[in-house]
Amino acid sequence: MSEAPLVGVVMGSDSDWPVMQAAAEALAEFGVAAEVDVVSAHRQPDKMVAYGRDAAERGLRVIVAGAGGAAHLPGMLAAVTPLPVIGVPVPLAHLDGMDSLLSIVQMPAGVPVATVSVGGARNAGLLAVRILASGAGPDAARLREEMSRFQDGLRAQADLKGERLRARAARPSIGFSA
Amino acid sequence: MSEAPLVGVVMGSDSDWPVMQAAAEALAEFGVAAEVDVVSAHRQPDKMVAYGRDAAERGLRVIVAGAGGAAHLPGMLAAVTPLPVIGVPVPLAHLDGMDSLLSIVQMPAGVPVATVSVGGARNAGLLAVRILASGAGPDAARLREEMSRFQDGLRAQADLKGERLRARAARPSIGFSA
Amino acid sequence: MSEAPLVGVVMGSDSDWPVMQAAAEALAEFGVAAEVDVVSAHRQPDKMVAYGRDAAERGLRVIVAGAGGAAHLPGMLAAVTPLPVIGVPVPLAHLDGMDSLLSIVQMPAGVPVATVSVGGARNAGLLAVRILASGAGPDAARLREEMSRFQDGLRAQADLKGERLRARAARPSIGFSA
Amino acid sequence: MSEAPLVGVVMGSDSDWPVMQAAAEALAEFGVAAEVDVVSAHRQPDKMVAYGRDAAERGLRVIVAGAGGAAHLPGMLAAVTPLPVIGVPVPLAHLDGMDSLLSIVQMPAGVPVATVSVGGARNAGLLAVRILASGAGPDAARLREEMSRFQDGLRAQADLKGERLRARAARPSIGFSA
Amino acid sequence: MSEAPLVGVVMGSDSDWPVMQAAAEALAEFGVAAEVDVVSAHRQPDKMVAYGRDAAERGLRVIVAGAGGAAHLPGMLAAVTPLPVIGVPVPLAHLDGMDSLLSIVQMPAGVPVATVSVGGARNAGLLAVRILASGAGPDAARLREEMSRFQDGLRAQADLKGERLRARAARPSIGFSA
Amino acid sequence: MSEAPLVGVVMGSDSDWPVMQAAAEALAEFGVAAEVDVVSAHRQPDKMVAYGRDAAERGLRVIVAGAGGAAHLPGMLAAVTPLPVIGVPVPLAHLDGMDSLLSIVQMPAGVPVATVSVGGARNAGLLAVRILASGAGPDAARLREEMSRFQDGLRAQADLKGERLRARAARPSIGFSA
Amino acid sequence: MSEAPLVGVVMGSDSDWPVMQAAAEALAEFGVAAEVDVVSAHRQPDKMVAYGRDAAERGLRVIVAGAGGAAHLPGMLAAVTPLPVIGVPVPLAHLDGMDSLLSIVQMPAGVPVATVSVGGARNAGLLAVRILASGAGPDAARLREEMSRFQDGLRAQADLKGERLRARAARPSIGFSA
Amino acid sequence: MSEAPLVGVVMGSDSDWPVMQAAAEALAEFGVAAEVDVVSAHRQPDKMVAYGRDAAERGLRVIVAGAGGAAHLPGMLAAVTPLPVIGVPVPLAHLDGMDSLLSIVQMPAGVPVATVSVGGARNAGLLAVRILASGAGPDAARLREEMSRFQDGLRAQADLKGERLRARAARPSIGFSA
Repeated sequence: MSEAPLVGVVMGSDSDWPVMQAAAEALAEFGVAAEVDVVSAHRQPDKMVAYGRDAAERGLRVIVAGAGGAAHLPGMLAAVTPLPVIGVPVPLAHLDGMDSLLSIVQMPAGVPVATVSVGGARNAGLLAVRILASGAGPDAARLREEMSRFQDGLRAQADLKGERLRARAARPSIGFSA
Repeated sequence: MSEAPLVGVVMGSDSDWPVMQAAAEALAEFGVAAEVDVVSAHRQPDKMVAYGRDAAERGLRVIVAGAGGAAHLPGMLAAVTPLPVIGVPVPLAHLDGMDSLLSIVQMPAGVPVATVSVGGARNAGLLAVRILASGAGPDAARLREEMSRFQDGLRAQADLKGERLRARAARPSIGFSA
Repeated sequence: MSEAPLVGVVMGSDSDWPVMQAAAEALAEFGVAAEVDVVSAHRQPDKMVAYGRDAAERGLRVIVAGAGGAAHLPGMLAAVTPLPVIGVPVPLAHLDGMDSLLSIVQMPAGVPVATVSVGGARNAGLLAVRILASGAGPDAARLREEMSRFQDGLRAQADLKGERLRARAARPSIGFSA
Repeated sequence: MSEAPLVGVVMGSDSDWPVMQAAAEALAEFGVAAEVDVVSAHRQPDKMVAYGRDAAERGLRVIVAGAGGAAHLPGMLAAVTPLPVIGVPVPLAHLDGMDSLLSIVQMPAGVPVATVSVGGARNAGLLAVRILASGAGPDAARLREEMSRFQDGLRAQADLKGERLRARAARPSIGFSA
Repeated sequence: MSEAPLVGVVMGSDSDWPVMQAAAEALAEFGVAAEVDVVSAHRQPDKMVAYGRDAAERGLRVIVAGAGGAAHLPGMLAAVTPLPVIGVPVPLAHLDGMDSLLSIVQMPAGVPVATVSVGGARNAGLLAVRILASGAGPDAARLREEMSRFQDGLRAQADLKGERLRARAARPSIGFSA
Repeated sequence: MSEAPLVGVVMGSDSDWPVMQAAAEALAEFGVAAEVDVVSAHRQPDKMVAYGRDAAERGLRVIVAGAGGAAHLPGMLAAVTPLPVIGVPVPLAHLDGMDSLLSIVQMPAGVPVATVSVGGARNAGLLAVRILASGAGPDAARLREEMSRFQDGLRAQADLKGERLRARAARPSIGFSA
Repeated sequence: MSEAPLVGVVMGSDSDWPVMQAAAEALAEFGVAAEVDVVSAHRQPDKMVAYGRDAAERGLRVIVAGAGGAAHLPGMLAAVTPLPVIGVPVPLAHLDGMDSLLSIVQMPAGVPVATVSVGGARNAGLLAVRILASGAGPDAARLREEMSRFQDGLRAQADLKGERLRARAARPSIGFSA
Repeated sequence: MSEAPLVGVVMGSDSDWPVMQAAAEALAEFGVAAEVDVVSAHRQPDKMVAYGRDAAERGLRVIVAGAGGAAHLPGMLAAVTPLPVIGVPVPLAHLDGMDSLLSIVQMPAGVPVATVSVGGARNAGLLAVRILASGAGPDAARLREEMSRFQDGLRAQADLKGERLRARAARPSIGFSA
C-alpha cells in the first residue's frame, strides 16, 4: 500500500542526491511517507512556484529543500507556501558550503527557512519528523514517542562507543596509564 | 482567560530580550499562546535540562531558543526534548553573530536545530507558527490559512512600497527620466 | 517627453533605495531612461516572475536588481529573463554584506548574474550603460563615446585631487620635506 | 569563413585555461565568435593596457577576463575600455577563490566589473551572450531567442533529472515509501 | 599499579579519537594518569552533566574535552564543574574547524573554556600538564621541572633540524651560495 | 599586608587595559593576589623573555596575557615559561578580533596557550582561579568551593532575570498571552 | 633646501589620505624626503604606469602605495618598477579591509608586494625606512642606527606605560591586591 | 669562493622547507648569497632573539622568515632587528593559511613586517632582491637592472604562453570560431 507523502524532499539538481539521500532515509526510518524530486529555482521556476503553491493542498506537511552555492530553492519555496520549509546547505566545489549556508539562513523577516548544518540532510529529515511529531493528535504523540526512543538509541550507541574506547585506551599499546 | 502556552521562547540572558522580543510578538500576532523565560545552558544547566525534558509534557509543541557567542542553548535543548527547537543566533559585541550562527546551526547528525538568520527572532516566531500550522487538524488548517493571509499581507505591503517608490523616483528632483 | 525605459532598477524593499538610488542616478547622468520599482522575490513571487518574463518584451534591455541577506532577487530574475541581470549586494545590519554578496554571485552554471561590489549600486548603473553601449548601432557607439569621456572625467578628477594633495602635503604643517 | 571575434576571453596565465575554457565553450555553443589570449596585468602591463584600449576599435563588444589571487586583470581592463568586462575569479591553491572574488568584485565607484562565481567561467560566457543579445537589432533578438531556448533546455534537463530521481527513489532498495 | 586518573580526556564521539589520542599520549609522556571516554553533550546529556558534576570529587583535576561542529561539550562541562576545562576544536568535513573553534572559545562571561588550536589535542594534553605543574607542592614542582626539560628538548630538536637544514641547503644541488 | 601575587596579568599596551581590567577584577573577587604590567613582545622583547623566565621562580602560578592584532605576547610567554598561560584576544579597530584570536589560539604543537573569547578578559581571570583551584591542597579545595559558589551565584542571577522577564512579558503592553 | 624624494607615497584617492598620512609622518620623523600623490590604477592607468616606470630613474628607492577594496595600485606599480613596493590595505565602508588586504597581499609569483596591516600606513613608512637603512653605505648605517634608537624609544615608552599601569592598578579603587 | 650571506632565510621548522625553498632559489637565481636556518620563536626563543640581534652586524641586510599558524617568527625578529623582515605565511593543515597570514601581517604600529602571499616564498626572495636592488651604489643599480630583465622575462614567458594558447584555442577540437 502506498501512503500519500507527508514530506517533500526536493533539491536543485540530482547532483545533490548523494547529500540529500540522508534526509529521505531518516524519514523512512520513522516510517514517514515522503516524495523526492528535482525542483530547481533557477532552471524550473514555474515548477518551483507550482510545487510550493500546491504542496499543502496535496497533503504535504513539511518541505525539505537542499541547494548549493547561491542557494535560492528553500527560500523561494518558503515564499510560496505556508508550510514549514527546512533548508539544507549543500557544499559545492568552492567555499565549503559557506555560500550555501548564508544564502539559505539569512532570510528576510516574514519568510523563515529552518536551516540545518552544511550537508546536514539527515538532520533535515529528523527535523521534519520532529515537526510532524509536534502535533496534538495521537499519531503525533506516537511519533514523538518514537523520536524519544531514537534519542535513547543515540545515547545507547554513545554509551557503547565509550565502553569500547575505554577498553581500547586501557590497552598498553597506546602507552598511557588510564 | 489564560491559554496554556504552545511555544516556549527562551534565551540565555535577559540581555537577549531586545532581539528575542520579536519572536514573542510574531506569535502574539497569530494569537499563539507563548511563554518566555531565561534558560541559560551555562548558568542554569539543571533548569535547562528540566525545561527541555518537561516541555512536551507541559503542552509545549515548539521551543524557540536564542543565544549568542558559543551559543549552546538551542542545541542542548534539542538534545533533551523530542520537540522541534528553533535557534536564533543573537549577535554579540564581536564577530557579528557569525560565532552564534555556527554554534547553533552546525549540529551533529541526530540532533537537529531549526536555525534562522542572525538576529532573526521574528522569523523564529513565524516558523513556530508554520510548524503549528502544519498539523492535520482544523486548528492547524485555520492557522495555515492565517499564514497564507499574512503572506498576502507581505505582498500587499511590498506592492504599496513599490507604488510609493515609483512615484518618488518619477519626481524630477532625483533627476532621471523613468 | 517620456522615453520608454531601457533599464529596470528593482530592489527587494524600499529600504534598499538609499543604496540603490545611485544606480538610478548613474543611468540618469548618461541620459538612459530607467524605471524603478520594488520587486521582492520573497514577498511578491508572482510579480517577480512576471517582471522578469515581460522585461524583454516591454523593451527593457538590462535589469539592475539589489537585495540583501539571503538575496534571491537577482538570481531569480536571471532565471526568468534572457536579459543580462546586474546584482547589487545590499549590506544589512549583520555580516556586512558578505551574505548578500555570496547569495548573488555564486549562481549555478546556466544562469549568470553580473555582480558588483557590496553596496556598489553606482557601478551597477555604469555597468548597465556599458552594456547598452556595447551594441553595434550608432546609439551604442555614441554611448560608448560618452563612457570614454566619463572615464576621462574620472582621470581629470583624480589629477585634480593629486594636485591638491601634493600642495597640501608640501605645506610644512604636516612636517615632512616632499 | 572566419568571423571577427566579438568577445575576448583573456586570462592572467595559461594555467587558468582549464577553468576559462568553459567560457569559450559557452560562446561557441551560441555561435559567438571569440578570441582567447593570455593577458597578464602583472607580467604584461603594456599588452594589457593596449588590449583594453584597442578592444572596442577591434570590434570586440565584451571582454571576459579570468584571474586568481590578487586578481587585477578584470579591473584593470575595465579601467582602459568602455566595454563591459566580465570577471571570473579563478580559485588558486589557497583561500579557495575568496581572494580572487574580492579582488575582482570590490571595484571602486566608476569602474565596474561584472563578476561571476568562483570558477564560474561558463556563466561568464553565458553572460557575454546575454549582453550581446540585449541589443536593439535583429541579430540581438535572434540571440535573445536562442538564450530563451537555452533556458528552456535547462528546464527540460532538470525535468528529466527529476523524473529519473523520482524513479530511482521509488525503488525499494533505498528503503523509504515515497 | 593503576593510579587514579588526574585528567579526564573526553570527546563527543569515538570518531574524534584519532585527533584526541594525542592528548592522551602527551599526558602519558609526563606520566600523568588519565582516563578517556566518550561523553556526548547531545547524545548523553545526563552522563555529561554527571561526568562534570562528579569530576572533582572523583579526583580529576583537569578535563580535556574535544568536539566538532556545534561543539558544546567543553562549554557544557565547564558549566557543571569548577575544574579547568580545556577545549579541543575537532575539525569536521566542512568549514575546517572554524565552527568548532568559535563554538568552544566564544564562551559567555562566567564560564571559561581554555581553548587550544584546531585539532590541537597534543597541546591540550601539555596544557593539562602545565596546570597540574602550577601547584604549590613538591609534585607540581617536579612536573614543572619536567615541563622545562621538555621545552629544552623542543629546543634541542629544533637545533638539530636547523643543523640538518643548513647542511642540506649548503649542498650545490639546490643551487645557491649560502 | 601585601601578599605575593600568584597571577600575572600582562598586556601589550596600556590601551589594552580597558579590556584586561576585567581579568584583574575577577581575580580580586576571589581574593587572588595578582600583579598587572605592560609587557610588549614587540617593544620589550627582553623584558618579555625575562618576565616569562622568572615568573615561576617569583611565585607566579598562572600568567594571563592580552594582546591584539598579530598578538604574539601569550604565545611567546608560553615559550619561555612552564606555567600555564592564558591568552586574551583583544579586538582592535579592524577585523573585530579575528586576527587576535587566530594569532593566539593557533599555537604549534609543544607550546599551548589557553585561549578565551575575543575580549574575554573576565573569563581569563576566572580560568586562572579554576587553575589555582585545581590543586591538591586545602587552599585549592577552598578556592574550588568558592568557584562552585560563584557558579551557584550565576545560576541565582539567571533565575532572577528569568523571573523578571516572565513578569515583564506577562504584562499586556508587549501584547501576547503567555 | 629641498631634497629629492627617496620615497613615493601614493594612494588611489585623496580619501585615503587620513589613513596614508601616517606613512608620510613616519618618513618625516626619520628625515627621509618623500613625495605624496594621488595615483589611481583605475582612474589614471597611464599616470600609474608612468609613475612606476619612471620611479627608479627619478631617484625614488621605495614606493608606498595605499588602496582599498579591489586594491590594484600596489600590485600594478610592482609590475612596472623593479623597486620594492609597500602596500597598505585601506579599509573601506564594508568588509573591514579584508578585501583590501587580500587584493594586495595575494600577488602571483614574480611580482611581490610588501604588505602591511589593514590601515597600517605608519608601519609602511617605517618599513620604507628599514629598507633605506638596509643598504651598505654610511647613510644607511646611520639610518639603521636611528631605527635602533627608535626601537629603544618604543621600549622606553612601553616601560613608562607599564610603570603607570602598575601604579594605577595598585590603587585600591580598582579593588585587587597586587 | 664563499660570499658572506646578505639574506637570512629562516623558518620555524624544517617542515616549512618545502615552501621556503622557493625563497632560497629566487635569491640564488639573482646570485644573492643567502643562508638558511631553522629559527623557532616558540622552541628556540633565545636563538631567535640572538639571530635578530646579530643579523645586521653579521652583514645580513634582509631577513626572510616563514612560519605557520600562530606565526610569531617574522614579527618577533622584526622586534629585535632594525633590518627589513619579510614574512611568509606558511599554510598548515587547517584554515588554509589565513591564521598564518593574519598572525604575520597585522603587526602593531612601530614594528612592520613585509608580508607576502600565503605560501609566497618565491615572492619573498624576489622582494629581498628588490630591497637589495633599491640601494644607491653600483651593485644595487646592477641588481635593479637584473630585476628589470627578470620582469622582461616574465613578460616574454607570458607572451609565449599567449601564443600557444591562441594556437590551441584556434584548433577546431575545442569547438569555437576564434
